[in-house]
Amino acid sequence: MSTIHINWQPDKTASTPIYQQITNYFQHAIASGDWPVGTKLPAQRKLAEQFGVNRSTLITALDELIAVGLITSTPGSGMTVSGNHWSSLLAEHVNWSQYVKAGQFKPNPHAIQKINQFETDAVIRLSTGEPAPDQFPRALFQKAFDHLGRSLTSLNYSEPAGILALREQIARHLVKVGIHTKPENILITAGSVQALQLVAVSLFPKGATIYTEAPTYVKSLQVFQSAQTHLAGIPMDNQGMAYWQITPPTDESHAIMYTIPTFNNPTGIVMSAERRQQVLKYAQEHRIPILEDAAYQDVWFDQQPPQPLKASDDSGNVIYFGSISKSLAPGLRLGWTVASQPVIDRLTDVRMQTDYGASSLSQLVLAEILADPEYDTYQAHFRDVLAKKAAAAEAILHHYWDDIATWQTPTGGFYLWVRLADRINVQKLFDLATAQNVLFNPGSIYDFQPNQYIRLSFSYESTERFEQGIKILTQLINENF
Amino acid sequence: MSTIHINWQPDKTASTPIYQQITNYFQHAIASGDWPVGTKLPAQRKLAEQFGVNRSTLITALDELIAVGLITSTPGSGMTVSGNHWSSLLAEHVNWSQYVKAGQFKPNPHAIQKINQFETDAVIRLSTGEPAPDQFPRALFQKAFDHLGRSLTSLNYSEPAGILALREQIARHLVKVGIHTKPENILITAGSVQALQLVAVSLFPKGATIYTEAPTYVKSLQVFQSAQTHLAGIPMDNQGMAYWQITPPTDESHAIMYTIPTFNNPTGIVMSAERRQQVLKYAQEHRIPILEDAAYQDVWFDQQPPQPLKASDDSGNVIYFGSISKSLAPGLRLGWTVASQPVIDRLTDVRMQTDYGASSLSQLVLAEILADPEYDTYQAHFRDVLAKKAAAAEAILHHYWDDIATWQTPTGGFYLWVRLADRINVQKLFDLATAQNVLFNPGSIYDFQPNQYIRLSFSYESTERFEQGIKILTQLINENF
Repeated sequence: MSTIHINWQPDKTASTPIYQQITNYFQHAIASGDWPVGTKLPAQRKLAEQFGVNRSTLITALDELIAVGLITSTPGSGMTVSGNHWSSLLAEHVNWSQYVKAGQFKPNPHAIQKINQFETDAVIRLSTGEPAPDQFPRALFQKAFDHLGRSLTSLNYSEPAGILALREQIARHLVKVGIHTKPENILITAGSVQALQLVAVSLFPKGATIYTEAPTYVKSLQVFQSAQTHLAGIPMDNQGMAYWQITPPTDESHAIMYTIPTFNNPTGIVMSAERRQQVLKYAQEHRIPILEDAAYQDVWFDQQPPQPLKASDDSGNVIYFGSISKSLAPGLRLGWTVASQPVIDRLTDVRMQTDYGASSLSQLVLAEILADPEYDTYQAHFRDVLAKKAAAAEAILHHYWDDIATWQTPTGGFYLWVRLADRINVQKLFDLATAQNVLFNPGSIYDFQPNQYIRLSFSYESTERFEQGIKILTQLINENF
Repeated sequence: MSTIHINWQPDKTASTPIYQQITNYFQHAIASGDWPVGTKLPAQRKLAEQFGVNRSTLITALDELIAVGLITSTPGSGMTVSGNHWSSLLAEHVNWSQYVKAGQFKPNPHAIQKINQFETDAVIRLSTGEPAPDQFPRALFQKAFDHLGRSLTSLNYSEPAGILALREQIARHLVKVGIHTKPENILITAGSVQALQLVAVSLFPKGATIYTEAPTYVKSLQVFQSAQTHLAGIPMDNQGMAYWQITPPTDESHAIMYTIPTFNNPTGIVMSAERRQQVLKYAQEHRIPILEDAAYQDVWFDQQPPQPLKASDDSGNVIYFGSISKSLAPGLRLGWTVASQPVIDRLTDVRMQTDYGASSLSQLVLAEILADPEYDTYQAHFRDVLAKKAAAAEAILHHYWDDIATWQTPTGGFYLWVRLADRINVQKLFDLATAQNVLFNPGSIYDFQPNQYIRLSFSYESTERFEQGIKILTQLINENF
């Protein structure tokens, strides 16, 4: 184990932040081999002195180096160079803006990483956009497994666009919502996120503006932002996107619309039938192609929502994304994209380079289930249970939060979009709640500006646990705000 | 239906090819709304006259416009504008070089698209890198389905890095090849292609050089090329990559090594144990991180191959890619990446933005199967059958091709890498063979220069059908070369 002497100091007049200069310096010293693995670093106090910076700046830099694996800190024995060449490359990518510049991936913001991680732990998950485990239709799956166990003779790659039998079932399924299409116009994807990703890398022109509802689910993803595009939030009224507030694109600009017209996530707003026609007409006139995200299409309570935009699209202007994650099982990781054939062909081609197709096993199981006449019975029951849970959740909010929050009654989907009183600091409440094992999604991750909203899912947890979660939040609010 | 008058002509002095100028002109006229959908185009003869170009140039341009869906040609009634706004965006992306510039996806070359498409048809598939359907272990899967049918209580998203029980099984499985790792160091991916994709977008510096065996499987993918990197082919001898022929990178350049040390695809070459140590040492000295693709690790015939590079990697310099596609079932779409924890964390984060995790169903089934004591019995039997098929395939080649081809006896993997006599035009043979429903992979898709090789898979088809395919190829060769 060698030790080192440092003669370098950060340039305090440079525009690069001091901590960033320090991480760069460490990274280069390690990547160049000057500081081989095992090298012991001077104590923090000495480093801060040498660099002429305060401890907190130094610690910011060291934390980043530890996070990417370039150095290791062991209590008692100090810091050691542990980095390999991958750590060094990782360190270069720590600069988020570089991802964006390269048209590649931005890391998930910290809050989303935290949610992804927490979601798998034993906490009260008012954040989780998934069907409740106890709504899982075991009998349907067991029947499909039994049948596959007897009939499956191999499990190889599927057709590039997805197993034909599944695409046929999906075409049949789409007729129920007014979309008449053919298997050739359908691509099976690993859920909607992959579909959005494929469209972004295959079709988005550099610098495109994506008009979308504000707030919107897609703001919480990095997928479009990473594709060198710009998300522009358009306000909603209770009929859906206020499309007339779009600044009409000039001929040169590249504009695309992304919309969740049915049970918008997170707000639950349903675009009215009339607004749908207006939006289609506006997009046609202004030559704006449309991405329609229909993840919650089948998750209605008492009344089937208006037909998707795609049902009225006779020019191929709408690319439609469906998913089985919200109405059956996210663990199948399956969705479908409906578009004109040249678009499907291109997406399929890019998709083969991405992961060589979706799980054949998942596809076979889903084809079995969609073909089962009992699927419709299951769906009706699923919606019925969900509607009851929604009503119960709302009653709980009325009981505890009538004086500190407002919301609209949802008519489908999984969420209550709740505005908290101004005195409540949502970010602080989020931190306090996670410490108490209650998880919800702060509204700001979906919005284009800070807001006072939180998204509560009534789908995943039982009504009892939902109430337990609200009780804890209520107590935290009373004690802290 | 309106018709149009065209006053434009291509600029014959410009550096943009004439046909490209024509497609651009059409695309802009359609995208701008000047030529609405339904517009009838003048006859080809008239268009060629107006543009002052010959028919073949015009047809090149029109074919591209038809391919992306901007115009439709109906025999008898001529050409019509059929494009929607997505077709127009698609047309912009037709310019392949733009994909590369944007660090995004290059379309699969035409030959590979053709192979992907043919692979699902009823042809003799000497191209197919998959286990034979009749080697599918139905009993193992049936047992797993039965167990899941009884025990599965939900099917939601898995942990971001993959289901823990599966990562534990994989860690246990890796001990057999000398890799001692922990679940935290494993990311479950949708096969190796996705893993390579994730590494490329998460870790590759812009303009990096990827040193790899020549020929290599990865050359047939667009994944690295699309990530603004440069593939550099390094020759092999019978011990593996001739690493000393690498031009050592300067400090400034970003160099990465990609290797398939065990049963290199397509050549079947196994890197010797000694060479593995030398390559590791070389990479360490020159600070070149290594990507080790071990897709065929478990597919050996008589003798277990040397341990993976990863088994000797104590500095985290090697990222290891394993897959279940070659030894069990590609339709599960599952693979695993083993790396240091900061690398796994970053890849996991990017992966969640790509498709929100692998199929939970596939993961659960694979965890069941890997935990089944009968899995090892199946593997031994699988290898035994494969070894016999390899020997039979080689005997067939000896019978028909001793005077027109040479090859090495494979000791594992799925392929015979066959050099055809110089008089045989491989591309022409490929075209003739596909017309006769026999498919093989031309060696040039794996190489950095044209070559006289073809890759024949003995794995997928039965020995009888393999012989039938070779007979057809022999006849084509005799008649045409």
